[in-house]
Amino acid sequence: MNGHSNGRGQAPRRIVLLGATGSIGRSTVDLLERDPERFSVAAVAGGRDAAALADVARRTKAEFAAIRDESAYQALKEALSGTNIQVAAGRDAVIEAAVREADLVVSAIVGAAGVEPTHAAVSLGRDVALANKECLVCAGAPFMRTAKKMKAALLPVDSEHNAIFQALGGEDPSRIERMIVTASGGPFRTWSRERIAAATVDEALNHPNWAMGPKVTVDSAGLMNKGLELIEAHHLFGVSADKLEVVVHPQSIVHGLVTFADGSVTAGLAPPDMRVPIAHCLAYPERLTTPAKRLDFAQIGALTFEAPDFERFPALKLALDALAHGGGLTAVLNAANEIAVQAFLDRLIPFSGIAKHVAEACEAALRDGYAQEPATVEEALDVDHIVRERSRSALAAEAPSGMLTLQ
Amino acid sequence: MNGHSNGRGQAPRRIVLLGATGSIGRSTVDLLERDPERFSVAAVAGGRDAAALADVARRTKAEFAAIRDESAYQALKEALSGTNIQVAAGRDAVIEAAVREADLVVSAIVGAAGVEPTHAAVSLGRDVALANKECLVCAGAPFMRTAKKMKAALLPVDSEHNAIFQALGGEDPSRIERMIVTASGGPFRTWSRERIAAATVDEALNHPNWAMGPKVTVDSAGLMNKGLELIEAHHLFGVSADKLEVVVHPQSIVHGLVTFADGSVTAGLAPPDMRVPIAHCLAYPERLTTPAKRLDFAQIGALTFEAPDFERFPALKLALDALAHGGGLTAVLNAANEIAVQAFLDRLIPFSGIAKHVAEACEAALRDGYAQEPATVEEALDVDHIVRERSRSALAAEAPSGMLTLQ
Repeated sequence: MNGHSNGRGQAPRRIVLLGATGSIGRSTVDLLERDPERFSVAAVAGGRDAAALADVARRTKAEFAAIRDESAYQALKEALSGTNIQVAAGRDAVIEAAVREADLVVSAIVGAAGVEPTHAAVSLGRDVALANKECLVCAGAPFMRTAKKMKAALLPVDSEHNAIFQALGGEDPSRIERMIVTASGGPFRTWSRERIAAATVDEALNHPNWAMGPKVTVDSAGLMNKGLELIEAHHLFGVSADKLEVVVHPQSIVHGLVTFADGSVTAGLAPPDMRVPIAHCLAYPERLTTPAKRLDFAQIGALTFEAPDFERFPALKLALDALAHGGGLTAVLNAANEIAVQAFLDRLIPFSGIAKHVAEACEAALRDGYAQEPATVEEALDVDHIVRERSRSALAAEAPSGMLTLQ
Repeated sequence: MNGHSNGRGQAPRRIVLLGATGSIGRSTVDLLERDPERFSVAAVAGGRDAAALADVARRTKAEFAAIRDESAYQALKEALSGTNIQVAAGRDAVIEAAVREADLVVSAIVGAAGVEPTHAAVSLGRDVALANKECLVCAGAPFMRTAKKMKAALLPVDSEHNAIFQALGGEDPSRIERMIVTASGGPFRTWSRERIAAATVDEALNHPNWAMGPKVTVDSAGLMNKGLELIEAHHLFGVSADKLEVVVHPQSIVHGLVTFADGSVTAGLAPPDMRVPIAHCLAYPERLTTPAKRLDFAQIGALTFEAPDFERFPALKLALDALAHGGGLTAVLNAANEIAVQAFLDRLIPFSGIAKHVAEACEAALRDGYAQEPATVEEALDVDHIVRERSRSALAAEAPSGMLTLQ
């Protein structure tokens, strides 16, 4: 970590919050409001909801509020009139928010839109609490290169990676023999392959443990989310693909485990409340006190574990294969998956069509030579863009036959 | 830690091994032999088994071998003739071994006999891998005072404390909200209070998970061992009694857990192989590679947890009360327990007589004013000695009635 202030008789820690109106953003605001002495907010940035962003900016006494959607500028400006909060709109405004002088940038913009501003912050050596997946899944190699060069610390917000970060306790990842990310198993954990293949949108959105957005929930149902998390873990912790593993753990209490060369294992656990990992990142290396419900092990009773079934969950296998292959194939996998999940949510393809399309997209990328490792973050975003376009075309062409298997 | 050498292109780490012929000692030797480049052995010390100590000294190429039993001197000398290994016998010889120049002293002498040599090492600022219980349970306050003053690091060998040490990952214990030590529950976990009260020696020695000495196995059956471990944890980690907790976990996979103020939990896990925590201590902050069987969570299937029952296991409640009371009461509890367990093993008192006697001994100590905090390690050992004598007399007088309840 760079020189941090931590609010214990010191100057408040300056925070930039990117993605302030989303789920992670709102949980972050909740924590910042509980500890106003400890934090000051340099900037907040949102997508298009001017009213929500204005509310966050007022509540956190932010110095600057940036909204990505330029057409929302006037609404934001009016909503913040009478305050000292500066207002701006557009892609550059979000980057301006990202690079404001700060001790920690919370990167919680969802999707590829989060990569550019987060990379801009890391390029200035800012420490980042990272909730955006694409920085690692799509642009992992160049993104990590910048972070290392600029000595920007990356604190993972995602429950699994945060748990592993805490389980590691600062220990050198080179001493890790195996790193395990747990999976709840999702709503289809006990279903047959045939039943999963024909699952409806409602069935896929019925996650047993977490309330998340529809994209992530569908990813969870097919275990693709765990594949993406292993890809993130590979980049974040510098652990090679052969040491990474998924174990199904339906209670979602243990989020990650690490085995060391001597046989010792450490694990990170947390209740299902995103404020816990966010608080860990906000205060690191100190600790905040949160109102999250504490884990009571006697009450929990049993924690169970089972091996993931690659036959029934082919998306997980595809992600592991892409990770093992390396290069830019994980960016291809991620982009194709995102479009395929949207096609499933739009009822254009069956559930089994997601993995089928991702497999085809990966094969096409290998065949057509755009799965090499991106040299820069911009190059990674270009590949992401190309694959999305290709996937949209491919799925539009395929949709009718996909619809047939839904009958 | 003081300036360590760690054997990676550096000078070998110099080890002193106290209690070389016991169970922890033998496991330590196994690890030292596997990595001869990494370690050199300054001294080994044993109790009375000259042949076994000579064997260890030869195998580890120790510079010095000390045996506590003076009558074993000649046998040891003969067994090591033709080597360059120095030989000595008696209490002072063991202390001489303890204070030899070394990077790490493994303190694995069982019982009160281990306190004096371990304290001598700590008094010189030696880092210690601590397996001896009495240093903390009997002389905790003055022992820790010396360690802190001399900046001697204490690395816990005991599975539970080692797990917690690893789960903490160097984090400041002041940020801990709760510290949990797990208990297998022992052979009487599901028994009724009446059945436990009348348990035979064979029944008490039938531990489900671990093969240990009879004293520790009986302590496990009544959960007194967990009470003693909480007392150790209190001293080792500086955590107050109200933050310490026991949870029953029959699989003995998770050994300890820590809850932080933000709700995060980290846990330490290990297979049932003492080489794992010993290896952790020997190499800390590096890691050795051990041949211990690795944990396979899918194969393990389920980890279960339940609250301990103080009604059926009154010894645990006594230990928690002694810990909460503080001062020298834990030394009284430990000494009275050791004599009472021996009386049970000698079939002089029933199983229920152990807790009954410990309760009476604690009451007597409070009444007669020798439960105050010992100012020095010597004072703590004096109290230990006095309580043992009193317990022996009391139990000898009570034995007949105790025998009656065995019918």
